[in-house]
Amino acid sequence: MTNQKTKYLPLKDLQDFCHSAFTTIGADRPTTITATKAMMHGSIHGIDSHGIRLLAHYVKALEEGRLNKSPELSINKVRTSTSLIDADNAHGARATFAAIDLALKTAKTTGISAVGIQNTSHFGPAGAYSTYAAISGFIAIVFGNSDSFVKLHNGKERFHGTNPISIAVPSHVKEQPWLLDMATSSVPFNRIELYRSLNKELPKNVATDELGQPTTNPHIATILSPLGGEFGFKGAALGGVAEIFSSILTGMLLSPEILPMMGPDFKTPRKMGAFVIVIDPNGFLGLEAVKLGMESYLSLLRKNKSLENKKILAPGDREWQEAQVRKLNGIPIDPETFDSYQLLAKKLNIKLPF
Amino acid sequence: MTNQKTKYLPLKDLQDFCHSAFTTIGADRPTTITATKAMMHGSIHGIDSHGIRLLAHYVKALEEGRLNKSPELSINKVRTSTSLIDADNAHGARATFAAIDLALKTAKTTGISAVGIQNTSHFGPAGAYSTYAAISGFIAIVFGNSDSFVKLHNGKERFHGTNPISIAVPSHVKEQPWLLDMATSSVPFNRIELYRSLNKELPKNVATDELGQPTTNPHIATILSPLGGEFGFKGAALGGVAEIFSSILTGMLLSPEILPMMGPDFKTPRKMGAFVIVIDPNGFLGLEAVKLGMESYLSLLRKNKSLENKKILAPGDREWQEAQVRKLNGIPIDPETFDSYQLLAKKLNIKLPF
Repeated sequence: MTNQKTKYLPLKDLQDFCHSAFTTIGADRPTTITATKAMMHGSIHGIDSHGIRLLAHYVKALEEGRLNKSPELSINKVRTSTSLIDADNAHGARATFAAIDLALKTAKTTGISAVGIQNTSHFGPAGAYSTYAAISGFIAIVFGNSDSFVKLHNGKERFHGTNPISIAVPSHVKEQPWLLDMATSSVPFNRIELYRSLNKELPKNVATDELGQPTTNPHIATILSPLGGEFGFKGAALGGVAEIFSSILTGMLLSPEILPMMGPDFKTPRKMGAFVIVIDPNGFLGLEAVKLGMESYLSLLRKNKSLENKKILAPGDREWQEAQVRKLNGIPIDPETFDSYQLLAKKLNIKLPF
Repeated sequence: MTNQKTKYLPLKDLQDFCHSAFTTIGADRPTTITATKAMMHGSIHGIDSHGIRLLAHYVKALEEGRLNKSPELSINKVRTSTSLIDADNAHGARATFAAIDLALKTAKTTGISAVGIQNTSHFGPAGAYSTYAAISGFIAIVFGNSDSFVKLHNGKERFHGTNPISIAVPSHVKEQPWLLDMATSSVPFNRIELYRSLNKELPKNVATDELGQPTTNPHIATILSPLGGEFGFKGAALGGVAEIFSSILTGMLLSPEILPMMGPDFKTPRKMGAFVIVIDPNGFLGLEAVKLGMESYLSLLRKNKSLENKKILAPGDREWQEAQVRKLNGIPIDPETFDSYQLLAKKLNIKLPF
């Protein structure tokens, strides 16, 4: 890692660099567009762990064969409102945007639709997909799993992945849906890494050492605890929900069976699943009623009394605020990503965005 | 409260007493059957707060007019896979079992179905409905809201209800689905009451006093915290999910607007909503594949190493274990419920189960 300070880059330049890298290695256009779109969602909304820092990682997975540069997605429409998509080892973003598109189209007629995704891979920020649906006027629920990082309640070894659940709901300001995008662990793993770099004690009950013993020392913390602290059975159960939908309904691998995202094997497809449910508000009282309902709900929420010096936020508020700032000031590039971009530009002979 | 010890009564006797009470006050047969079934689910599975202790409460609500003794449910099938049911101020169990029945029937054809319920009331244990669907071979998601008990993250006054989310999935042993049935608060309110009666300090971060200040003193704790402790924004967001589905998609009241379950007004219908989603595994890889998948998943989970003297449980395990014991030993009747049954039997001139 170099000791440069964090740089800020315009969205467009970063997006162009991602497009250029994917195109240069021969990824097809849909993969290029969707993988970039998912990373940009992360970076624009402050979810940097799932943002453009993943570019070099994805390039490697596409080059070495884990991911298919030109996947042929095939749709198996099992029932009127349900389908399976075999994603042919596509990038997770390619597969999941396709699943949302299919579910949107179906839900428009039937009111609700669910799509299970087979043979996909890491999809980055789950909220990218639910937000996409919500901006189109639909409610979406997105489930994913990953390789193991999180212990079970009362457990002392890894079991579930950070297994995200994201739900987005259109609200009256079209571009700013109500947005839940959560890992079912107490904290994401990059929080541990952040506390390591700050040499700061972790909150209690969020992680354990390699032997499964609770620790607040970030330097020896390697296993995450499920959401809920001493009520971690709820967080573990929510991790189970994401697991069941992503893996069991699609026949794909369970978290403990998935090859590690970080390698060393970047050749073997990871046989991961994911799952989306899309609801058309017009299958109930209508989009306008939902937007007005959300407006009343959020207005009541914002009137609720907060603790001193604390602010009550609705899910998504932090993300939309961050997006406003970043659209103005640019996306921060940490030194490690800066270095990886320099290597990538040199190797692929493409123009750096800085 | 009398100082009798807890009594244990056979399931059948309790069920008969509930049926007899409802029938005597003129509740129709579907209300009698479903309201009893929901309470029995609570009592059999150890969720006593939502069990047969509620009988006198429901009788009062039916007699004074909050609940309709002979509701005429009307179905508005909006799209192929989505409907709204206007429950005509039915008991919540009457309305929610009807919603599940409708969703099961639809999902059998379309693969997935969602039903929003309007003009319903307290439905007791959310798991009663998801379990019912899972035993029929379907996956179900059930959302409810309630009057306000839970503060927001960083908030200091009541906002959401305990807003339950329940999800059940058929697994290989037919009668024992994987069952998540959780309040989105850190603990249910009856946990506070239990700690009061034991004069025991509460865990940190689960409740506040009436001014919104965190407390571990159960005697002054009156407001629940959302699930997640210092990560309570996730619990509050999950409470929001239940709120949005139950209230906003159905056009019914938000938690802060709902009349208190405990009265004093037992006359006015509470204009509550609820929401169910039912998925037919045959809309994906089939029921047998899901059951086998659940078997592998649970077998992997049971092999996971646990902390010393701790046991790893799958969601539902505690409930099915308790059910086995209670089917053998009977349902415990606390002294308060014992007293309420004596009053009820006398007033309605029906035979006591003890």
